[in-house]
Amino acid sequence: MMQQQEETIVALATPNGIGAIGVIRLSGPDALKIINRVFKGKNLEEQDSHTIHFGTIRDAEHIIDEVLVSLFIAPKSYTKENVVEISCHGSKYIIDRIIKLLMKQGARLAKAGEFTLRAFLNGGLDLSQAEAVADLISSNSKASHQLAMQQMRGGFSNELKLLREQLIHFASMIELELDFGEEDVEFANRDDLRRLILRLQSNTSNLIRSFDLGNVIKNGVPVVIAGKPNVGKSTLLNALLNEERAIVSEIAGTTRDTIEDEINIKGITFRFIDTAGIRKTQDIIEAKGVERTFEKIKSSAVVMYLYDASETNEEELNQILEDLKAVSNEHNSSLIVVANKSDLHPLNYKKAGVIEISAKDKLNLDSLENALLAAVNLNLLNSDEIIVTNIRHLEALQKTREALDKVMYGIDNPVTSDFLALDIKQALHYLGEIVGVVTTDDLLDNIFSKFCIGK
Amino acid sequence: MMQQQEETIVALATPNGIGAIGVIRLSGPDALKIINRVFKGKNLEEQDSHTIHFGTIRDAEHIIDEVLVSLFIAPKSYTKENVVEISCHGSKYIIDRIIKLLMKQGARLAKAGEFTLRAFLNGGLDLSQAEAVADLISSNSKASHQLAMQQMRGGFSNELKLLREQLIHFASMIELELDFGEEDVEFANRDDLRRLILRLQSNTSNLIRSFDLGNVIKNGVPVVIAGKPNVGKSTLLNALLNEERAIVSEIAGTTRDTIEDEINIKGITFRFIDTAGIRKTQDIIEAKGVERTFEKIKSSAVVMYLYDASETNEEELNQILEDLKAVSNEHNSSLIVVANKSDLHPLNYKKAGVIEISAKDKLNLDSLENALLAAVNLNLLNSDEIIVTNIRHLEALQKTREALDKVMYGIDNPVTSDFLALDIKQALHYLGEIVGVVTTDDLLDNIFSKFCIGK
Repeated sequence: MMQQQEETIVALATPNGIGAIGVIRLSGPDALKIINRVFKGKNLEEQDSHTIHFGTIRDAEHIIDEVLVSLFIAPKSYTKENVVEISCHGSKYIIDRIIKLLMKQGARLAKAGEFTLRAFLNGGLDLSQAEAVADLISSNSKASHQLAMQQMRGGFSNELKLLREQLIHFASMIELELDFGEEDVEFANRDDLRRLILRLQSNTSNLIRSFDLGNVIKNGVPVVIAGKPNVGKSTLLNALLNEERAIVSEIAGTTRDTIEDEINIKGITFRFIDTAGIRKTQDIIEAKGVERTFEKIKSSAVVMYLYDASETNEEELNQILEDLKAVSNEHNSSLIVVANKSDLHPLNYKKAGVIEISAKDKLNLDSLENALLAAVNLNLLNSDEIIVTNIRHLEALQKTREALDKVMYGIDNPVTSDFLALDIKQALHYLGEIVGVVTTDDLLDNIFSKFCIGK
Repeated sequence: MMQQQEETIVALATPNGIGAIGVIRLSGPDALKIINRVFKGKNLEEQDSHTIHFGTIRDAEHIIDEVLVSLFIAPKSYTKENVVEISCHGSKYIIDRIIKLLMKQGARLAKAGEFTLRAFLNGGLDLSQAEAVADLISSNSKASHQLAMQQMRGGFSNELKLLREQLIHFASMIELELDFGEEDVEFANRDDLRRLILRLQSNTSNLIRSFDLGNVIKNGVPVVIAGKPNVGKSTLLNALLNEERAIVSEIAGTTRDTIEDEINIKGITFRFIDTAGIRKTQDIIEAKGVERTFEKIKSSAVVMYLYDASETNEEELNQILEDLKAVSNEHNSSLIVVANKSDLHPLNYKKAGVIEISAKDKLNLDSLENALLAAVNLNLLNSDEIIVTNIRHLEALQKTREALDKVMYGIDNPVTSDFLALDIKQALHYLGEIVGVVTTDDLLDNIFSKFCIGK
């Protein structure tokens, strides 16, 4: 996999915009030579790795900036190549001049994700770790940050490596049987293989199952919020806001549906999707209204129904809840029923499972938050279990699982060793795709083009 | 002036937004102690200055990020204090967590410009150099960048220091005369003093005069563009655009009047101000129309009149030019007259000073660009002359000049040494204000609050 990159690449590593400093990153065999040609100060080709040097960047005799240059000598760098980081004043004009100057000296503008691609190609990290770098940068909640960090630090890769090693052992045994094909020997004990495949099937299934949680953590838990107008939906969402909300919305480029509100509760992002579906009671019963609402419920993890305790009679409520329960059961989503303004109008009927709150006075919001958190399988999150967050990984795991099923079928049925070997190889192939032991240029292009430039 | 800062300050030094990395800066006596408490890796309190260390930032046992920490040990740093720069993944969530963590360990969020204020207070740079740092960050053209760089590297300060030293010498001589007051001695030779003051007056006046140029370079040269509709103004502006334009408009926070077009010609920014004033020929003669146009001409350095060569007769043109010349003369602005579409319709009358172009076919635009550049005193820019760009400096120089005039009056008239001493002290005071030998808290607040946070 080790591949020598001949070109030296350059890009701005910090965001665009006005800041105190900007950091320009160079990586490649000529990084030191190129910086040395435009830097006035010490001879940078003679300095130690992990040292910082003050000087000026010059275009002929014209001073472009006073800078600090950090040196990382191969292989002690992110890309495992020679890396130079230039910390200059945060002026777009200066940054532009310096990058152009470095290009004139032989560097090429880096493509999106090209530094991380080189880190991967040079063995600095595997593919799932590289993908976690992008997730880490875009993480905006405690939980999504935690999952990306775990993945970047190799938690997921280690689990997969373990699975692969065990399979590889058996694959080689079976290959051996093929070599002795005429003699009908079994080097690979079928009972051992069966036990291994069973364990692998179970592990793979657990990983596949974890994706639902991983996905909602990465993208936020979709919560459909239903209820008549003026029952206090906006007041409730504002009451649930906390300081972490500001972080989420400040990030430039965070794609948010304008009708969605993102709220962070104990590190988990919840995306509240307002639905105009349930406006009037009649709408619920009316097929069209139900459909519209239920369309959204299908893709949501939680359905929250909010009503005004002062204006809802028990019979009407029962009717609505019955309909909602049916749909949420069907689509495997949790139902949370909330009675608002309950301080002013205590319910004259008690309903089990109804959370009585006052959004305006922020009463009993704890119970509501706990109900929302309970709807997510947090036990899994807080354990050391690996959680899959990437749809590419999910697909590879599903294909692995299919191949494992075929292996199991082959063990339990009179199938020849060569077919067994083929299916095991398939499983190995898909597992290998996740960490990048098996790659294609298309796959790499697809993964790294989603990165920002400079990473 | 050296002042011990007791608090350690922290801020993000790179722009907000999504990028590969973010850099968090800590400065103060506890910078190393604070980072050491949350960093897992080497003991950072035992490392050399200007070295970089890989490790993790942890909140208790929870890993927030894998980072590179750069160390700058006092006084070998920007602020002359211990400085730590943490290069982390460019996630707003991570940056926020790290800054909060450092604050929990005793750092305080830095105010705007506080790092540079400390650099000034600790003698790292003088006040006019500190001000140039902000100018450098917001520079967006070759010329504004060059002036800010010259000022930051001390060109302006050195010129002022020279002036001050000569004055100080005479001030001490005159103080000596006062001590021997009864004896009517003259330690300070009045002819020498007279020659010195003459030279200082001339130098100060040159600096004051340079402000007009400095100001247009920093803020762009205002060019009022006048002419009837459809004579090709937009086509001309687009033709004058070059790649540097993109840089100017990309910078977030660059305040631009929406009706203004900024165009960069050989490193100088020109701000084209469209005026609806001259629409019909009648408007010119009509008092109201003239007033409206001329209001804009008053605040512009150049008036450019554009007309359609195919549609303008000589008599009409003469009338307009006569009016424009009168006003531009009055307000000391240059007048440039441009005949567009002249390739299709060569003028059947030749007028001296009229530049014949075709905006559509980009013909003869060189001549127009040269005329625009000629309107700015570029000789001054390309020489090593110091150019004043800051209105605070201009005001101090004007007050210096007034004090010098009084000194000169005192030399030429029977004024006692103590009055002479007072006036010289005044001149010294105002010169001192520019480089920050004389400061007040208000002045510093005013200057540094305009910086960005993290600088």
